[in-house]
Formats: sequence, structure tokens, C-alpha cells
Amino acid sequence: MKLKEKREIMRLLFIGDVVGKSGQQMVTEYLPRLKRKYHPQVTIVNGENATRGRGINYQVYKKLLSDGADVITMGNHTWDNAEIQDFIDDTTKLIRPANFTKNKVPGRGYTIINVNQTKIAVLNLQGRVFMQPSDDPFAVIDEILKEIQNQVDVIFIDFHAETTSEKEAIAWYLDGKVSAVVGTHTHVQTNDARILPQGTAYLTDVGMTGPYDGILGMKRDSVIARFVNQMPVRFEVDEDGRQTLSGCVIDINDKTGQAQKISAFQINPDHPFFE
Amino acid sequence: MKLKEKREIMRLLFIGDVVGKSGQQMVTEYLPRLKRKYHPQVTIVNGENATRGRGINYQVYKKLLSDGADVITMGNHTWDNAEIQDFIDDTTKLIRPANFTKNKVPGRGYTIINVNQTKIAVLNLQGRVFMQPSDDPFAVIDEILKEIQNQVDVIFIDFHAETTSEKEAIAWYLDGKVSAVVGTHTHVQTNDARILPQGTAYLTDVGMTGPYDGILGMKRDSVIARFVNQMPVRFEVDEDGRQTLSGCVIDINDKTGQAQKISAFQINPDHPFFE
Amino acid sequence: MKLKEKREIMRLLFIGDVVGKSGQQMVTEYLPRLKRKYHPQVTIVNGENATRGRGINYQVYKKLLSDGADVITMGNHTWDNAEIQDFIDDTTKLIRPANFTKNKVPGRGYTIINVNQTKIAVLNLQGRVFMQPSDDPFAVIDEILKEIQNQVDVIFIDFHAETTSEKEAIAWYLDGKVSAVVGTHTHVQTNDARILPQGTAYLTDVGMTGPYDGILGMKRDSVIARFVNQMPVRFEVDEDGRQTLSGCVIDINDKTGQAQKISAFQINPDHPFFE
Amino acid sequence: MKLKEKREIMRLLFIGDVVGKSGQQMVTEYLPRLKRKYHPQVTIVNGENATRGRGINYQVYKKLLSDGADVITMGNHTWDNAEIQDFIDDTTKLIRPANFTKNKVPGRGYTIINVNQTKIAVLNLQGRVFMQPSDDPFAVIDEILKEIQNQVDVIFIDFHAETTSEKEAIAWYLDGKVSAVVGTHTHVQTNDARILPQGTAYLTDVGMTGPYDGILGMKRDSVIARFVNQMPVRFEVDEDGRQTLSGCVIDINDKTGQAQKISAFQINPDHPFFE
Ligand SMILES: [Fe+2]
Ligand SMILES: [Fe+2]
Ligand SMILES: [Fe+2]
Ligand SMILES: [Fe+2]
Ligand SMILES: [Fe+2]
Ligand SMILES: [Fe+2]
Ligand SMILES: [Fe+2]
Ligand SMILES: [Fe+2]
Repeated sequence: MKLKEKREIMRLLFIGDVVGKSGQQMVTEYLPRLKRKYHPQVTIVNGENATRGRGINYQVYKKLLSDGADVITMGNHTWDNAEIQDFIDDTTKLIRPANFTKNKVPGRGYTIINVNQTKIAVLNLQGRVFMQPSDDPFAVIDEILKEIQNQVDVIFIDFHAETTSEKEAIAWYLDGKVSAVVGTHTHVQTNDARILPQGTAYLTDVGMTGPYDGILGMKRDSVIARFVNQMPVRFEVDEDGRQTLSGCVIDINDKTGQAQKISAFQINPDHPFFE
Repeated sequence: MKLKEKREIMRLLFIGDVVGKSGQQMVTEYLPRLKRKYHPQVTIVNGENATRGRGINYQVYKKLLSDGADVITMGNHTWDNAEIQDFIDDTTKLIRPANFTKNKVPGRGYTIINVNQTKIAVLNLQGRVFMQPSDDPFAVIDEILKEIQNQVDVIFIDFHAETTSEKEAIAWYLDGKVSAVVGTHTHVQTNDARILPQGTAYLTDVGMTGPYDGILGMKRDSVIARFVNQMPVRFEVDEDGRQTLSGCVIDINDKTGQAQKISAFQINPDHPFFE
Repeated sequence: MKLKEKREIMRLLFIGDVVGKSGQQMVTEYLPRLKRKYHPQVTIVNGENATRGRGINYQVYKKLLSDGADVITMGNHTWDNAEIQDFIDDTTKLIRPANFTKNKVPGRGYTIINVNQTKIAVLNLQGRVFMQPSDDPFAVIDEILKEIQNQVDVIFIDFHAETTSEKEAIAWYLDGKVSAVVGTHTHVQTNDARILPQGTAYLTDVGMTGPYDGILGMKRDSVIARFVNQMPVRFEVDEDGRQTLSGCVIDINDKTGQAQKISAFQINPDHPFFE
Repeated sequence: MKLKEKREIMRLLFIGDVVGKSGQQMVTEYLPRLKRKYHPQVTIVNGENATRGRGINYQVYKKLLSDGADVITMGNHTWDNAEIQDFIDDTTKLIRPANFTKNKVPGRGYTIINVNQTKIAVLNLQGRVFMQPSDDPFAVIDEILKEIQNQVDVIFIDFHAETTSEKEAIAWYLDGKVSAVVGTHTHVQTNDARILPQGTAYLTDVGMTGPYDGILGMKRDSVIARFVNQMPVRFEVDEDGRQTLSGCVIDINDKTGQAQKISAFQINPDHPFFE
């Protein structure tokens, strides 16, 4: 990251996979309150499940922005809602994994936003272990860093992946080269938020936002039935039950690009919100 | 679980995947102190990576017992150290996944221990998604519950699985039928310890015990190299670095078999131990 | 297989995965001609892709029977067309993999048919490597053989599996215990039809019936597009192009249950049919 | 492929995965006889399992060349024998999949050989479905074709992949752009050798060379045991039993680069060799 003389702390707020209306409601209700509590300069929201659990459409994309998101990240569900192809190329506020097949898919894999005089790159990458084939995330991030590292002050990566090994590997690989690597996709928040030795904030998975009593946000009866007899069922978002919001807050020294603090949080019946 | 008149709370301590000497040392150092702090009646330790990261041999098995474990559970690495086949059939204190091929492999999938007049069943099960084929864990747990549910007061399950969906599904499937479902295998502790509505304590993954700066406990340079160029490397336990211990404590009403409290904890440089 | 005094040869005709209308047409056109050519006593057709490439409905099921099939076998696409659940329990002529979750799904995994005084068991099993979880096919076939081996003269297995290793393994495992193991699922006929040393006829995959210029029967532009950019596309049967039919003929001594001959064949522009 | 005025037919002989000493012996014994029978100008041999079933060492590499191979191709077992790293960079006669991580691994993914005045490119590529992650084979072949298509007359691809869908997809994708796509890896020869409409010869899998009564060339008792109880066993090449050799012969018009004929063959007890 480029060096410059500043002494501010940049605070990022990241909210994990928003699932369906339930997740949208949590964002609407709590994002303003989270902003009042934490005063983040940048808010990033993973929206890969925002529209009925599968992808995102224009109306929900606009809603998340109007509720306070600065950038929306995606993941393996990027294309589930075909409507995204109509607007993803017209915006810099919605990114999909950068290692989706090079030059062959719509959209962009990262975006750079300016807050005061600080430039923050927000990237989205996807893992390969137990996931659909994609370009090599280690090679792609190397290329992108070559392009951007002298232009930006802060680099945040949403690494959308299944396994803890791939997530830990890329975080350690990037330690000292980026400000933060935070995982998404498993929908369960991990308890390992930490600052790696060279200054990269890391959290294996930030968790999901939406139904609290579903299975990854889906109605649990269908998911259990599927595991029990392996017969096909339609999974639907559990829109009626209790809700959760999962996120993390990261403080980054925008002079060095190094993270100083990372803290994961949840808002749900077992973790009530305190203003 | 059988009904009887008691009013005690049974406290279980569970320690996640012990990796190599580093993990053994943490157990030796902290298990006595954890016992002084929490006074658990039963201590369960997952030992599938205890001997050089791959399985467990007799010497390490005895060491974990003498350090205070009452039952050792395993997982997909059960057979990695061939020596286990020499002693697994002679002990009731070491269990492997109950859904390993029925009647065709050594060892047992659960054990029942007595603490005062309380009978505690400890089970080990393995998931199927993104793992080696095994018998159906949902069907196998149904069978075992039929056998034991009227004989025991408390039922604890170590569910060794990769995906959050399979782990959440079996926990909800068993809610009210067992006292606790705690996941292992990913080596990263999740932040979702909770009591499900019918009284089952749940934690998606308890995390690992051993190297704190490795990747799942292995030396990170080799693991990263493997991800970067896909060429084979030998993974070895990162025996020299900083260390972590991951566990959880569960309080169970031994009259009803229902859990009342579950709390996950870690001991490492970012989470110092307080007596 | 039970011993009895006979000296006839039982001839089985097996036709591989019928895909869509294209596949149905090939059956309608060539099954009568194949019967005139080979005079099989029993005709078995894999119908897992018969209705629009995904499962089978009642109308197509009846059509395959009226065109000359005695038994229809299925595979991983069994439940794709939900209509099957309305009639699968009412017929003995349609079977799904026997190792689909025990006692928890509709239908049956094998059927026994009588031809003159010979009893022929037709079984369907599914592999587990790179496929949806299912019960252990090795354990399930052991159980079924215990039930039926003294009641039947001939045993034919359609083993629906992805990998050559699992297919060869089960065939060698069953050599001498069943009359024939023929694979399905990959939609490409293999060139290894042979009689194993103890008398079991084996063919890794019999191949598919339907579009000759698609990819596994699907329109190839969509499939290629999917491989090129990994974006979702709807796969549809290539109904308009050239066609193929893949099958095999097996001669079995119905006194010993041992196969004497197996021969794979195809009918398509590169392999014209000779009466 | 570049256009030029010639009228010769270039004949290629391709021999599939040589497994262990058993496979080497078959090459030693039959390659000279196959050359006398077919008079190929170029002989290509897949050697990924040539040394004890796992990779290839220098001695075996030299032996295959001295027995008549012009180029050795590899696959997912490329690095199994570490010795290969000592000589792979010093030879143009041994290639590994071209889509192994770009610029990060030893060796080359294709080679160009001259026969009289004809230039023949031999490429090796690996699939991604159900295999270790690798670079995108569709993108990599596009790049390579851009480099070489105007320099060479004939292009042969050994596509080492698991699924029939990925193999058919790349063949149709390349129809008219390369002379032949022949699959390896499953070790079972398919029965679908054909010329695609634009002139590309195609065979889903050429099959293996070595043990005839093993499972993919390995001793079958160990492989079956593994499937039956899922416990680890050491797989070893079945060196003592009967043997097979699998290959194909392709005739290519070296003026147009288009294939005119492809024929698969086997030599084993069920398919005796005729001079
Ligand atoms: Fe998600
Ligand atoms: Fe996801
Ligand atoms: Fe483990
Ligand atoms: Fe494990
Ligand atoms: Fe099929
Ligand atoms: Fe299938
Ligand atoms: Fe091979
Ligand atoms: Fe291979």
C-alpha cells in the first residue's frame, strides 16, 4: 500500500451474507444504529443471498445502498438472479469475485472508493476447494495488487470460500500486503478475529444476516428432510422467524494500511444489541 | 433420555482437535487448570490429530488420559496412525465415528460413562458432505438413540464434519433428543454457541488445540506453497510456534438431559487464560 | 444363485440412459428391430433421463414399456420429475437405486421377473464417489444377495456411478455372485465388455441413447458456455440432431447363473444398424 | 493450423496410461510390433503412472523413449515421483498439463516435433471437474492456440480428465481447431472414437496399459477392501497378472490438419494382437 503522511484511523464495517427479506430487514433496522455506535467511514455488505436467498436484483441492491451500504460484495450465488446482468456493469458499488473467469463475465472484482483523501480498495475473491472452478485466487490477487498497491491506502478483501484451510492460507499469504481478509460463505461466524503479525486483520467467516433459526438461513425442515432422505426439496428463506445480523468492525491505520483492531459481533436473541 | 429425580448439573468440558506435540503440551499445561477453574465432571478431548497431526498412537492416547481426559473422540483421521488398530478394541475410552462402515471396522462409536449415579453417553459421528463416504449419520444416530435413550441421562455428540449446513442440520434434527451437539474438524472455533429451543446445546465447531500460527495446525509455508502451485508437499505440525487451546463448557441438567448453558473459550496469545 | 437343472441360455438386452424425446424415438424405432435381431428374453432400459433429460413421468414410462422394455432402471436423476412419486410404488417394472436411503424413500431397488421357469432379478445401485451421499452399495448388495440368491437364477445389476474405480471394484467384488454388472451414468460407452474369471459379465458403462451430437445428450452450446465462463445456463436436450442408441447383449447360462458372452453395440451415424 | 501444400497423411499412435512395470513390459513388447503394423510417424505415450503407478522417474522415462515413444504426456500424477523435477526442465520430450499453475511449476505443457517437414504440436491439458484445482483449460488452450496455430500442421491434445462431460465439451469446443483430442485418466477405454464434423478426431478415453485384472491397474484386493470398509490401504500395482495395452491410431491430413480416421485398439487376453 502506498505510503503517506496521515494519522487517521479508517474504520470499516462489514456485514455478512444478507439472506432474503429477513436479512434486508435486519440491515434496515440495525445498520443506522450500528453507524451511530461505531461511526465507520466505509460500510461493506455481502449481498449474494439478498434476493430470496439467491443472488440480488436491482430493487434489493438499491435498498441496501439506501440503507447505508457503500459497496456490495457477492460470491458463488452472484448469477443466481439473472437480473444482475442488467446492472452490474453500470455500477462501481457492486462487485463479484475477481477470479471469476477472466474477461469472460460481466462486472468487476474490485472497486476503489475515496473517503476524504483516503483511497480504499474493496475486493471480492472466491475459493476453489469444494467450490465451482474459478481462476486461481492466489494468482489473481497477486495481479490486482500489482495494479493497485501504489494507488490505495487501504485494501479490504471479502474472501468467499468453503474451507478454513484455504481461508487461513490466503490470509497468511497476504499478511502485510492487505489491510484485512474477512471470509464469507459458510454463514456461521467464527471466533478467530485477530491481527496477523504483519498487520492484516483476519476473520475466517463473518457469518450471515437474516433468519436465526433456519439452516444457513433456509427453512430448516426442508434442509433436514434433504439430509435425511436425499430427495430433492425446494429450499426457501425462513422469513418468519427470529433474526440475526453478523458483522465485524476493523480499524485500519490509513498511513500504513495496517489493521489495528478487528472485532466481530452479532445481533440476535442470544446477543442483544446495546447502543 | 430417561427421566429421573435429580437436581444436579452435570458439567462437561470438551477440548477440540489436539494437533501434535504442540497440542499435547497445551492439554498437559492447561487441562488441570481448566479443571480447577470449571470443575467439569466429564472431560472429552478430540484426539484425531494428536500424533504428529495424523491419528493417535498408544503412548499419546495414554498421555491424554493421564492429563485428565475421560474420553477421546476421533474423526476422519482415525486410521492415519495404524497403531490404533492394536488397542482401539481394548478400551472404552477411545471412540471413532459411529457411522464408520457398520460391523466392518474396529472400535466403537460411543461409550457410556458413569459419574456418581449419572450415565453419560459420548458419541462420535462423521458428516458426509465433502468427506469420505460413510454410513448415513442421521440413520445411525436414530438407531443408537433407540438403543440408549432410556439408559442414559446425558448424551453428548462430537459431530466431525466439514460443512456448516450438515452440522446445523443434525443439531436441529436432534434438538431435544440429545444434550449437546458440538462440531469438530474445521479447526476454527465458531462464534455460535447456543441452546436450541428444545434444550440441545450447539456449537458448529469447537476449534483446535496446538499451533496458533500454523494453518489448521500445520506449518503454513508448506500449506501456502501447495495452494500457490498445487505441487505436493509434506505437511508437518508447526511444533515450534505459539499455541492455542480451544474448548467449550456445557452445563446439563441431568434430570432432564437438557443443556442449560454452553460457553466456548480459547487460550492463546490473543485470549490469555484467567484462573 | 440357486442351482437347478436347465440348459437354456437366457439372453438379456440392456439399453443405456434414454435421454429425452430423441432417446425415446430411438427406442421406438430400434427396440423392435433389436428384438428381431437378438431375441432377448428380457429387455432392460435405463430411463433416468427419459423425460426432458430429467427423470421420468408416467406417460414416458408407459411408452418405454409399450415399446418393449420389461424393466426400467434409474439413477441419480430418479426424483427429478416429481410425477414419479405418484406411480413408482404401484409398479414392479420401475426400479431406483437400492441404496437410496433405506426405508425412507418410495419405490424399490430390485425386481424379480419370471421368464418361462427362470427367475431373473434386476437390481439398480448407485455409486458414492463424486455423487450424492447414499447408503453403502457394497453393504446393500450383500444384504440383497442374502435375501434373493437362493430364489433366483439370474442376477443383473445396473450400477449407476461416476468413476471407473468404483465400477470395477463392485464388479470384481461380485464376480461369481451375480450374472452381470453393467454401468450407467457417464453416457459414454466403454470398450471393456468382458467376462470376469468367475463368470460375471462386466461393462464399465453401456452409454446413452438419444442425441448423438450433444454433450451427454444436452445441447452442446450451453454446456460449452458453462465450461467457458462458469455462468449458469439452462441445459436442454438436443432434440433436433442426429441420434444414437447404446446397449449390450448378455448371454447367461440359467443353470449356473454365469454369463457366457457380453457384447456392447451402438446404433448411430458412425455405427449403422445391420438387421 | 497453418495452410500448406502437402498431400501426406500423418499417422499418430497414442498409448494410454502406462502403469508400473507391467505397463512398461507391454510397451517394450508391443510398441515395436505396433510400429511394424501401423507405421506411425509419431508415437505418444502417457506415462503418469509408469513408475510404480505414481509418476515417472528418469530411468523409466528413458526406457519409454528407447522403446519407441517420441513424446511422454502426464496428468494428475505428474509430481508423484519427485525425481521428475530433476529432469523435466531439460527435455522437450516429456510434457505435463499446460494448465498447471502458470509460471509457477517446472516443465512445459506442449512440445513441437518435426517429422520430415511437418510440425506436430503435442499438448497435455487437465480437467477441473472432480480434480485438483488448476488453471482454466479452455482459457489456456485458447492462449496456446494463438501462439502456435500458424506454426504447426498438426495439433494433438491428451486431455487428462475425470468426467465425460468436460472431455466432450473441450473436444467440441476445439472441433476444427485441432487435429485430435484424446482423453486419459479413467484407465478404461471408451467406445466412441469418431471424427467430429469439423475434422477433429475424438476419443473420450484411450484406456490404460499394464495390469489387466487389477482395478485401474492396482491390486484389486486392496482397492475393494478400501471400498468395503473405507480404511486406508496401500495401493500397489498388480505386477504379476495378465496384461493389457490400450491405444489409438489417428490419421491426419497434414495439409489441412484435419483428422481422417481414428481407431482405438486393445491388446489383452480378450483382444489378442494380430500382426
Ligand atoms: Fe452466502
Ligand atoms: Fe456463498
Ligand atoms: Fe482435526
Ligand atoms: Fe478432521
Ligand atoms: Fe444418465
Ligand atoms: Fe446419472
Ligand atoms: Fe493414469
Ligand atoms: Fe490420472
